[in-house]
Amino acid sequence: MRKNIILKHEDMPRQWYNILADIRLNPPLGPDGQPISPEALAPVFPMNLIEQEVSTERWIDIPEPVLEVLSIWRPSPLFRAYNFEKALKTPAKIYIKYEGCSPPGSHKPNTAVAQAYYNKAFGIKKLTTETGAGQWGSALSFACSQFGLECKVFMVRVSFDQKPYRKAMMETWGGECIASPSNLTQAGRVALEADPDTPGSLGIAISEAVEAAVSDSTGQTRYSLGSVLNHVMLHQTIIGLEAKKQFEIAGDSPDVIIGCVGGGSNFAGIAFPYALDKINGKNIAIYPVEPKACPSLTRGPFGYDHGDTAKYTPLLAMHSLGHNFIPPAIHAGGLRYHGMAPTVSQLVEEEIFTPVAVSQIDAYKAGLLWARSEGHIPAPETCNALAHVVAEAEKAREEGKEKTILANFSGHGLLDLSAYEKYLSGQLSDLELDESQIEKAKKILDQHPAPERIRR
Amino acid sequence: MRKNIILKHEDMPRQWYNILADIRLNPPLGPDGQPISPEALAPVFPMNLIEQEVSTERWIDIPEPVLEVLSIWRPSPLFRAYNFEKALKTPAKIYIKYEGCSPPGSHKPNTAVAQAYYNKAFGIKKLTTETGAGQWGSALSFACSQFGLECKVFMVRVSFDQKPYRKAMMETWGGECIASPSNLTQAGRVALEADPDTPGSLGIAISEAVEAAVSDSTGQTRYSLGSVLNHVMLHQTIIGLEAKKQFEIAGDSPDVIIGCVGGGSNFAGIAFPYALDKINGKNIAIYPVEPKACPSLTRGPFGYDHGDTAKYTPLLAMHSLGHNFIPPAIHAGGLRYHGMAPTVSQLVEEEIFTPVAVSQIDAYKAGLLWARSEGHIPAPETCNALAHVVAEAEKAREEGKEKTILANFSGHGLLDLSAYEKYLSGQLSDLELDESQIEKAKKILDQHPAPERIRR
Repeated sequence: MRKNIILKHEDMPRQWYNILADIRLNPPLGPDGQPISPEALAPVFPMNLIEQEVSTERWIDIPEPVLEVLSIWRPSPLFRAYNFEKALKTPAKIYIKYEGCSPPGSHKPNTAVAQAYYNKAFGIKKLTTETGAGQWGSALSFACSQFGLECKVFMVRVSFDQKPYRKAMMETWGGECIASPSNLTQAGRVALEADPDTPGSLGIAISEAVEAAVSDSTGQTRYSLGSVLNHVMLHQTIIGLEAKKQFEIAGDSPDVIIGCVGGGSNFAGIAFPYALDKINGKNIAIYPVEPKACPSLTRGPFGYDHGDTAKYTPLLAMHSLGHNFIPPAIHAGGLRYHGMAPTVSQLVEEEIFTPVAVSQIDAYKAGLLWARSEGHIPAPETCNALAHVVAEAEKAREEGKEKTILANFSGHGLLDLSAYEKYLSGQLSDLELDESQIEKAKKILDQHPAPERIRR
Repeated sequence: MRKNIILKHEDMPRQWYNILADIRLNPPLGPDGQPISPEALAPVFPMNLIEQEVSTERWIDIPEPVLEVLSIWRPSPLFRAYNFEKALKTPAKIYIKYEGCSPPGSHKPNTAVAQAYYNKAFGIKKLTTETGAGQWGSALSFACSQFGLECKVFMVRVSFDQKPYRKAMMETWGGECIASPSNLTQAGRVALEADPDTPGSLGIAISEAVEAAVSDSTGQTRYSLGSVLNHVMLHQTIIGLEAKKQFEIAGDSPDVIIGCVGGGSNFAGIAFPYALDKINGKNIAIYPVEPKACPSLTRGPFGYDHGDTAKYTPLLAMHSLGHNFIPPAIHAGGLRYHGMAPTVSQLVEEEIFTPVAVSQIDAYKAGLLWARSEGHIPAPETCNALAHVVAEAEKAREEGKEKTILANFSGHGLLDLSAYEKYLSGQLSDLELDESQIEKAKKILDQHPAPERIRR
C-alpha cells in the first residue's frame, strides 16, 4: 500500500542548514560597485535577518515559535508515487516531498513564518512584499496573521488578473493585495508610464514593495522577500532535511534530485542538504528546472545584476536575464523572474547543479498525468519539476536503469485551475523567449563581471 | 507545541461501522406507498452497493484497493486548536478532525472512492451524479480517475456560477460538469420551463443525474449519491473511527461532537461511532449543525418524502423541508438540501442527536476567526460547524466548565474564496427562509407519516 513516510513532530529538524558554510559567494555590491555593508540593508530588513543573511554558521537553530507555527502542517509527507511510476512504465522509483499541505498550499510559508517571527522580534509592525503567482503573498499574509503583523502585497498584474482568488485569500488572513505596477509608488508609476498595459513582472513588484517599506516614515515597516536571498534559502532547507530523515526511515536514498526554480527557494529547500553530500563527493544528479520562456540558469549569463527593475536592490552575483526583462505571461507566475538566487547560481557555476528547461505544454502534460494518477493537482510551478521527473523516468526506462528520484512538489494548483482549463481546451501554447533579450542581458551583466568558481 | 495526533497507516481502521446494526429505520417506500425491494434499485445502483445499503452487519470490511486510495491522504490529522481556544478565551479543549487534506479538499472522497471501487467491481463503466458546492462532484471525478471510470456531474447552477474552478477541477480529473437544471434531461427541462432563471437545487440535480443513469441504454451507467444513503454514511465512519483511535493516543475523550449537516454525511462520519457510545448510555452531546436558511432538522417535519424534486427516488423516512423546496442561495452549497439522511433523522427523533441552526453571518465570522488563528481557510460548510463550536466554547467560558469538543473540519475553502471576499466587503447577509415552506413541507410529509422512535 502507498504510505506516507511519517516523521513524528518530535523528529522535526531543529536547525536549518546554511550552505554559506560550504561555498563562498561573490559579495553583494552597492551602486558604486563596492561590497556593501550589512548595515546598508537596515532600512529594508530587520537586523536579525541581515545577520542571518551573512552568517556562515553551518547549522542555525530554528526558534521554537517558528517550529510551533510550522507544525500546523509539518513534517510534510514524503511518499513513493507508485501510480505515477506505473503510468510512466519506468523502472525508476519516484519519491515526492509534498509541500501542498500548508494553509496557503505551498512551501512558501516555511520562510514566511520565520521572517514574520524575526521581524516581530525586532519590533516591526508591518511587512511589504511582492508576489508572482500569489503563493508568496498568500504565505506572508498567513504568517503575518500568526504573529499579528500587517501585510501589504504587490501582486504582478498578469497573475492578479488570472487568479482573483489569491487576493481574497490574502484578505482572509488580513493582508492587503494590490496589482503591480500600481500608482502607489514611484517605481510603479514609471512602469505604467512606459507601458500602461504591461503584464507586470516580479522585478517591478519588488521595486514597489521595497519603496513602500523604506518610504514609511514611522520606521516600523520592512520588506520581505520570498526567494533569492540566502536567509530565504536557509529557511527552506527544512524540506530537504526532513526528506533525508524520511529516506532513512524508508531505507532508501535518492540518486536524482529535482525541483522547479523561479528565484530558487523551493529548489534550494530540497537540494541544499543534498548539495552538501555532492560537494563532499557523493555521486548525485541535482536538477533545477526552469521554464523555457524564462531560462535564467540555462540561457542567462552569470554576473552582477539588480534583483529588481528599478535597481533599488544591491547588485547580486547571479544568473540573470537582465533586470529589465519582462518574461512572457506563462501560467507559472512563481517562475517568472529575471534573476536567480546567488547561492543556486554559484552552485550551477561550480557544476553541483545541472539546470534544465522545459516547455509550458510539457509541464501541464506532466501535471495532468500526475493529477489523474496520484490525485493532488499540482501548482503550475510544480508541473515544471514534474516534466523533468517524466524525462528522467523515461530515460531510466530507455536505459533499463533503476534509479531513485526525489522531487519537490512545491504546492497544489487549486488556485490555478483556470490554467488547467486553458490547457485542457487547447488554449495554452508554448510562449517563446525574445532571443534578443539574451544579448541585452549580457550587456547588462558585462558591466559588473563576477569571478567564477570560488568554492570555499 | 501544537501536534497532529498521528495515526500510522498500519493503524488505519480496516472496517466501517454500520449504524443499522444498532437502530431500526422506517423502510424506503415505492410510489405505491409499499416498502420497495432492493432489486427495484438495480437500475440506479450496482447490486453490491445495494446489499451494503440494507446490511445490518455492525462491522463491514474496507476493501484493500479502497484503503490504498484513501491512504493518499488518510489517516487524516486530529489536532488540538490551541490558538482558536485562546482567541475564544475558553476553558474548553477544542479538537479538530481535519478532512481538508484529500486531493479535492473535503471528506467526500471517503465514500466516492468506495463507490467507484464497488461500481468498477460490478462492471460499471460510467457514473452520474449531482453536486451542490462542487465538493462531491470533484470527489467523484477524482475517485473515477483512480479506477478508470467515466464521470458526469450535474452541478447546481448557483454554485456552478459562483465557483468556476470546480468545473476545471472535475475536468482535470477527466470528469464532465454540467450546470443544472440542464436541457439534457426531462427533469431539467421541466425545471427550466418553470423558472428559466432558477438557481437550481440539489433536488433537481439529483433528478437529472438519476435520469441520465437509468436512461443509458447500454446498462453500464449507474448513479452515485454523495450523501443521505446508508452506505454513504457507512463509508464516512472512517472519520470517527480514526478520531477514536487518535483520542486514545492523546489520552482524552470528547464530551461534545459537532459537524455540519446538509445531507448528513460528514456529520455521520464523525458522529456515528460516538452515537453508538451514547446509545449504550454514555453522556455525550452530539450536535448536527445546519444553516438557518435550510433548517431541515430544526424546522422540517419528520415523515416520508422524496430525495429529489422530480420524485424519481423512493420515499425516505426523514426530516424534510419538502422535495419542492429550493433553498436560498447561501454560500454553503453542500448544505442546500431539502432532506436529511434517514439515519441522521432517526437519531434526531430518538434524541441521540440535538440539531442546531446557525446564521450565514455567524458561520463566516467563525470561519474567519479560524483562518486567522489556526491557518487553514475553512469551507463554508465547515464554517457552520465552527459557528457552533464557538457557541459551545463561549458557553463553557460563561459556565466556567472544562469540556472537550470534537468538531469535524469537513474541508478547506480554497475554492470558496469569492464568498469570503463578499463577507469581508460586507456584501453577505443572512438569507431568510420563506416561512410558508414549513407548512408546505408538513402537507407533503403528512401524506406518508412515518412511525417515530423505533430504536432497536
